Amino acid sequence: MVPSEAEFDVVVVGAGLAGLAAARELVAQGASTVVLEARDRVGGRTLNEDLGAGKVVEIGGQWVGPTQGRLLELAAELGVQTFPTHIEGENVLELDGRLRRYSGTIPRLNPMSLLEIELVRRRLDSLGRGVPLAAPWDAPRANALDSTTLASWLRRRLRTRAARELVEVAVRTVWGADSGELSLLHALWYMRSGGGFDALVDTEGGAQQDRFVGGSQLLSLRMAAELGERVRLGSPVEGVEHGAQGVRVSAAGESFGARRAIMAMAPPLCDRIAWRPELPPSRSQLAQRMPWGAYLKCLAVYDEPFWRADGLSGESVSTRGPATTTFDNSPPDGSPGVLLAFASGADARALQLLPGDARRDAVLGGLARVFGPRARRPERFIEQDWTRERYTGGGPVCFMGPGTWTGPGRALREPVGPVHWGGTETAEIWSGYMEGAVRSGERAAREALTRL
Amino acid sequence: MVPSEAEFDVVVVGAGLAGLAAARELVAQGASTVVLEARDRVGGRTLNEDLGAGKVVEIGGQWVGPTQGRLLELAAELGVQTFPTHIEGENVLELDGRLRRYSGTIPRLNPMSLLEIELVRRRLDSLGRGVPLAAPWDAPRANALDSTTLASWLRRRLRTRAARELVEVAVRTVWGADSGELSLLHALWYMRSGGGFDALVDTEGGAQQDRFVGGSQLLSLRMAAELGERVRLGSPVEGVEHGAQGVRVSAAGESFGARRAIMAMAPPLCDRIAWRPELPPSRSQLAQRMPWGAYLKCLAVYDEPFWRADGLSGESVSTRGPATTTFDNSPPDGSPGVLLAFASGADARALQLLPGDARRDAVLGGLARVFGPRARRPERFIEQDWTRERYTGGGPVCFMGPGTWTGPGRALREPVGPVHWGGTETAEIWSGYMEGAVRSGERAAREALTRL
Repeated sequence: MVPSEAEFDVVVVGAGLAGLAAARELVAQGASTVVLEARDRVGGRTLNEDLGAGKVVEIGGQWVGPTQGRLLELAAELGVQTFPTHIEGENVLELDGRLRRYSGTIPRLNPMSLLEIELVRRRLDSLGRGVPLAAPWDAPRANALDSTTLASWLRRRLRTRAARELVEVAVRTVWGADSGELSLLHALWYMRSGGGFDALVDTEGGAQQDRFVGGSQLLSLRMAAELGERVRLGSPVEGVEHGAQGVRVSAAGESFGARRAIMAMAPPLCDRIAWRPELPPSRSQLAQRMPWGAYLKCLAVYDEPFWRADGLSGESVSTRGPATTTFDNSPPDGSPGVLLAFASGADARALQLLPGDARRDAVLGGLARVFGPRARRPERFIEQDWTRERYTGGGPVCFMGPGTWTGPGRALREPVGPVHWGGTETAEIWSGYMEGAVRSGERAAREALTRL
Repeated sequence: MVPSEAEFDVVVVGAGLAGLAAARELVAQGASTVVLEARDRVGGRTLNEDLGAGKVVEIGGQWVGPTQGRLLELAAELGVQTFPTHIEGENVLELDGRLRRYSGTIPRLNPMSLLEIELVRRRLDSLGRGVPLAAPWDAPRANALDSTTLASWLRRRLRTRAARELVEVAVRTVWGADSGELSLLHALWYMRSGGGFDALVDTEGGAQQDRFVGGSQLLSLRMAAELGERVRLGSPVEGVEHGAQGVRVSAAGESFGARRAIMAMAPPLCDRIAWRPELPPSRSQLAQRMPWGAYLKCLAVYDEPFWRADGLSGESVSTRGPATTTFDNSPPDGSPGVLLAFASGADARALQLLPGDARRDAVLGGLARVFGPRARRPERFIEQDWTRERYTGGGPVCFMGPGTWTGPGRALREPVGPVHWGGTETAEIWSGYMEGAVRSGERAAREALTRL
């Protein structure tokens, strides 16, 4: 190897929130950097869609919660404002073919189901408090927790069908994975990383509380504008040579030498790169063991948010689906009206088997059951299937099945020579969220800076 | 798209047993083909190592069992002979710091442990008989079986430590995965695919009964010789364009047009290829959800098989490890003496963390405990870590964690337009073994032939 000449202090791979936050921190500390991005755009899993008339809506990650302090700070630094997710009105639950309106986060269920859900929620949080965020493999009984699925654990504690189905909807919406795919230890770690069950699923006070004026991708667009020519689009990285002297990264026919590298991308994508020397076995086995959730994000755009006049918030949960969770996703001024509908996990897979028109009909049919016949006739229907994006691969996050944390898991953040790992999956706080992405990038930048 | 001209009827990607068997069948039926192989050798997971004096030993897959009829036929067609694995003498079990000699497959244990193991063995086989090999997702209670780990299921049935530890050794040796990583449904399917628990773990009468004179790679070398210039080494496939008209495969700066393609490679490797159009979501999500086992194969070469004079077969099981399973792997004439030692799953991962000398010392220290101090001083020590092979990624096979069969699993063998899927993971009979590889290649060839 390696770099006959290091043209940069640090090469950053990936211009999502993590990579851009890393580069921004590097530049702030006086280090030279280049950011290589495979796509012809920045933002990674955040992506704005134009609604016309200066309005946008997001087809990727979009929310920010009150405990996501670093993301809020960054937004303030970049001059991006927030506004509250629309929550006025009643929510709707569709269960067993019946619609029930409710207020707040607790739907009207039979007392037994409510009790079961409450006990599971408390027990998950209490078990989670035993999981060290920096080292989940050190949790008490880590091997037992990690050799069990979340489904096995829930099955013994949820006896009523309503409770089972509702918890499954919540699990799929959070991870894009079914409870039967998730390691219990990973689920506990992830929930703790965000501050507990409620913090993840709540709108008010939780991860879905606020949105960004101008769309969440604006954060990346603004950071990229600051970084200027340091960001190279259309540069998918093919190979990384690394050694004691530094790294040499090849992308789109060019070669970039640097003293250190930050890989700010989802773990499985790292396996596509030709590494010389090969990555340590634990790192490559980890890349094989962090699959993406299955996620479809659908947006139905109407001339106005007609559900508000019916006293509805736009937030709903349906165990029938196929889009099991909805939100009012209209711009701050409520025009146009936008309903956001998620299908995730098994529900997403079922939808993906249908042709495009049938998918649209199935999603709108579900919205019409909940919000009335007007929901069936949007002016525009936008569908984003993140599993079809080569440079992502699913959504919202890569998860761990059983055996991964206690197996190759400790390779997740461990630098390999001059190579550091970013991306929201590597965050300890709010892993899987934009907050985690920003934190992971800044953490990787600090790691690299102290070793320059 | 696509091929302005199809130069071939079928392009085969991968020159392991599956790809070569596919190409051989295609040629036999008069179809034109080219086989693109990333490495500079054929054989995939089978690989001979020269011992000098015309002797070889295998550092990859090596055995053939009596119910692996297609592999035996192929060997006969290619003029490759078999010989029995050396089994004369007593086996050794190391458990709780004690050595126990025993004959046959059943070690001397306390009756409770023996009973537990026997009941688990029977129950696994009986549950497995309900799993349709072609469609495991249709098994009775498929969702329940697939949302549970094998570990969760075993935990309730194995109360004695001896039984737990011994079954874990067997699981790791079969899959390279811990029971806590495996879906119960997948484990049942896989065992049934080979004919049941005993068929997989037994030497005499089972999957380890016989070996190939000249080494298992000889099968691939002979098929490649027959295929001649149709096999292109050093041709890692980078992109596949596919459509109604056929496929165009790019590899090492060349482009190969064909009417159909057979991808004869492990499922996760398919994710490295740039597909145009992208693969269906279920296929790409499956590629993310079939990780490789962790497998280290070590061979200690001595001037003679000294353990035979001590009345030992060379076969041993140790719950301490790090190489938990050993076999006599000497050439047919018993010269030189070769002990084969496997470390798999968590044991492989622990070994991988050690530097090379310490790994060797740890493995040889284990052999010396079981076979005496002479085992510590081999003339040669060979170590093959399949997790470090870029064009493999682990060993012996890619497995499924919970949720995969009942999730994207049915995409495993489903052709995508003109693209067919081979590789031992796609076999219904003896999946994971050389038999399955050959069967999968021939099945994919027949699929392609009927559609030419």
